[in-house]
Amino acid sequence: MLTQVDMTNWQERDLPFSHLGRRLQPPAITRLMNDALSRPGLISLAAGFTSAETLPVVEVASAVSNLLSTPSARDYLQYGLNAGRPLLRKMLLDRLVEHYQEDGLKEMNADQVILTNGSQQALYLAMQVLCNPGDRVLVEAPTYFVFLELLTGLGIEPISIPAKDDGTPDFPGLMELLASWRKNDEWHRLKAVYLVTYFANPSTRSWTEGEKLALAGALNAMGAQPVLLEDAAYRDLYFDAPHPARSWLSLPECAKFPAVYFGTFTKPLATGLKVGYALTPCAPLLKKMQQLKGHHDFGSAHFPQAIVESILAGGLFEPLLAANRRFYRRKMDAFATALRQAGLPALGWRWSQPAGGILLWARAPDGLSTDFSSPFYQCCLEENLLYVPGDLCFAEGRPHHSVRLSIGALQEEQMHTAAQTLAKATSRILARQ
Amino acid sequence: MLTQVDMTNWQERDLPFSHLGRRLQPPAITRLMNDALSRPGLISLAAGFTSAETLPVVEVASAVSNLLSTPSARDYLQYGLNAGRPLLRKMLLDRLVEHYQEDGLKEMNADQVILTNGSQQALYLAMQVLCNPGDRVLVEAPTYFVFLELLTGLGIEPISIPAKDDGTPDFPGLMELLASWRKNDEWHRLKAVYLVTYFANPSTRSWTEGEKLALAGALNAMGAQPVLLEDAAYRDLYFDAPHPARSWLSLPECAKFPAVYFGTFTKPLATGLKVGYALTPCAPLLKKMQQLKGHHDFGSAHFPQAIVESILAGGLFEPLLAANRRFYRRKMDAFATALRQAGLPALGWRWSQPAGGILLWARAPDGLSTDFSSPFYQCCLEENLLYVPGDLCFAEGRPHHSVRLSIGALQEEQMHTAAQTLAKATSRILARQ
Repeated sequence: MLTQVDMTNWQERDLPFSHLGRRLQPPAITRLMNDALSRPGLISLAAGFTSAETLPVVEVASAVSNLLSTPSARDYLQYGLNAGRPLLRKMLLDRLVEHYQEDGLKEMNADQVILTNGSQQALYLAMQVLCNPGDRVLVEAPTYFVFLELLTGLGIEPISIPAKDDGTPDFPGLMELLASWRKNDEWHRLKAVYLVTYFANPSTRSWTEGEKLALAGALNAMGAQPVLLEDAAYRDLYFDAPHPARSWLSLPECAKFPAVYFGTFTKPLATGLKVGYALTPCAPLLKKMQQLKGHHDFGSAHFPQAIVESILAGGLFEPLLAANRRFYRRKMDAFATALRQAGLPALGWRWSQPAGGILLWARAPDGLSTDFSSPFYQCCLEENLLYVPGDLCFAEGRPHHSVRLSIGALQEEQMHTAAQTLAKATSRILARQ
Repeated sequence: MLTQVDMTNWQERDLPFSHLGRRLQPPAITRLMNDALSRPGLISLAAGFTSAETLPVVEVASAVSNLLSTPSARDYLQYGLNAGRPLLRKMLLDRLVEHYQEDGLKEMNADQVILTNGSQQALYLAMQVLCNPGDRVLVEAPTYFVFLELLTGLGIEPISIPAKDDGTPDFPGLMELLASWRKNDEWHRLKAVYLVTYFANPSTRSWTEGEKLALAGALNAMGAQPVLLEDAAYRDLYFDAPHPARSWLSLPECAKFPAVYFGTFTKPLATGLKVGYALTPCAPLLKKMQQLKGHHDFGSAHFPQAIVESILAGGLFEPLLAANRRFYRRKMDAFATALRQAGLPALGWRWSQPAGGILLWARAPDGLSTDFSSPFYQCCLEENLLYVPGDLCFAEGRPHHSVRLSIGALQEEQMHTAAQTLAKATSRILARQ
């Protein structure tokens, strides 16, 4: 605040930004969107959109029409509670118990749930109340890249849980890492572990109960007690059957760790309604998150919550989900078929067929880099194809050999073109090397 | 992270909260809501609700029906942009120019606007990108109490702009204050000035252009260049005519201060849609706020934005506003009449008749304290009447002699009871003293 300038053409250096303000960087999505906008005909495998076909136009229209023709119509257009509509909170909890047979959640009640602007806001609230700049959060390798950016903005250091070659967690490696922190007096900096446990963004893998127990065991053996953040954003979007692992909150062996479960109605119902939630039996943590939400916005938009509640109450949610699951399974099968038919496996590409979600995580042939500065990325872009470079999804910004492909915004008729472009770009770049 | 506990009955001390987490306190509204819930028949003059009668049920129903019967229906249920719908951003800017003859805004464009979860979120974003813990923000005395709580949560120190007895700003007093900071090397801590400039919450006063220029002059004379945050949440809710002062952004003499204008469609249209906004010609500041919003929630709920846009595009907003203004003017007149008829002026109560908004700010008779611990508050509560104690609205937590009375949730048939309760409690407490 010591300088004086007289102009409307402000520069960043003229503003008295906070440490947080100075840390903020253009998000990866800005680069992706700019690249997309520069090429109008581009096929995007990068956007996190759900498929337009799955969006519940008829159900929302009917819900709104019902809501606004009742005597309480005006209530839905009024402020709601900071924590969100009580009935919706109760219904989503009941649904988790019933649909996933989550006995551990039976004891919980609607007061242990907070509704947020997508589950993203709930993650932000948890990080703000738990972490100071310089603190650490253990994440998967790879993990959700927007969460990594969120941490960096808050000055929090994401550290990857060591992983084996097949992508599964390396628990002895984790114990070694924790031992080194303990030795170097960096122990107190570990505040939380963030896991995407069902059809994860981006890896599409799910955590088994055995892995959850092994993680709890490893932390426990080392005397660490971080808060466990379980992001279940894609859980409802299984293809054939629910992933059999119960959530962290329902595993009695994990009860000694404070834990929060993050869910959402965005991906499985409607991204445009932006209703997410967090639930936790850890009362002091929830209380702080609620108090902070009071500062952010004192409650998410009330009307979309009423719409979601009405859809649930009308019994429309499960049939919609069932239809969406069939839709995405068919679409994912078609996309994987297109990738195979274009010869990607023969070129050295490897992936595991996802069992749910809207993403496919693929590993490039040896020696092929996929990052923003790679010839492969440039070549795909010139051929009007966009993907998320895999290195963005790693806390350490490497390795550079994977891609996250989203089928959400992909039209079925674009699949073969997309697959052929990937194959063509691969051949071209490998031939050059 | 050094302690080990094994229980689900977590205590606050067991959790590894951040500095921010530890600073968070139960908001005043929790106390007010608990007091309200304890008495089902209570009349609340505390709630910040708008009147149910003003909520646009027909218009929202029609907007949704239109939106969802077009070929782009699905787009409205999909993710929107982080900054919000471009057309809505353009329309709200055009409207400000046209409706308020804000020439200064004519040069601005939709890219200088960000849509947020109410204007509250925009305020939070601005504070996060500007202020470190220990920084200072100048505020009015009194000011919006949720903003004070937000600052405290972030560790920011709110300091009142000195005020004269009539509530108008004391500019020589401000210059003295700034001089003392300069002398004590506390200068760099001043990051922003927060003003509620139209029918302010809670004072209901509006800033004149002369006052805005005098403030700019005082800051300038002292060599201070804080960011100017202009909260115009109630601007559209004038009773007879717009308040004649242009916004800070349209005053050329104020252009040397980075400034943000905060507005909203919550109070004037529908609180349940929660569409607020900020606009600023200061590109680096907006960019940081946008980047941070990407971390909070990467965009407010898209569907409510489409509803607001549709209502604006259909020409329904101005007629709704006109009707709401007439409604609130009539209601405010009736309430003031009820207060007079109950004999409050004779008991020593004083207030200025508001020219807009949904609040009435009244000063108690000499010697009557109105805070949570006062016999007056208790007496009102026992008589089933709730108000916001005025001391909550001051950065320094005093004086204790005012009340904020909201007519939003007040039914017309409750007005006389409310006024008589205030009178009865006043007489009773004054008689005891």
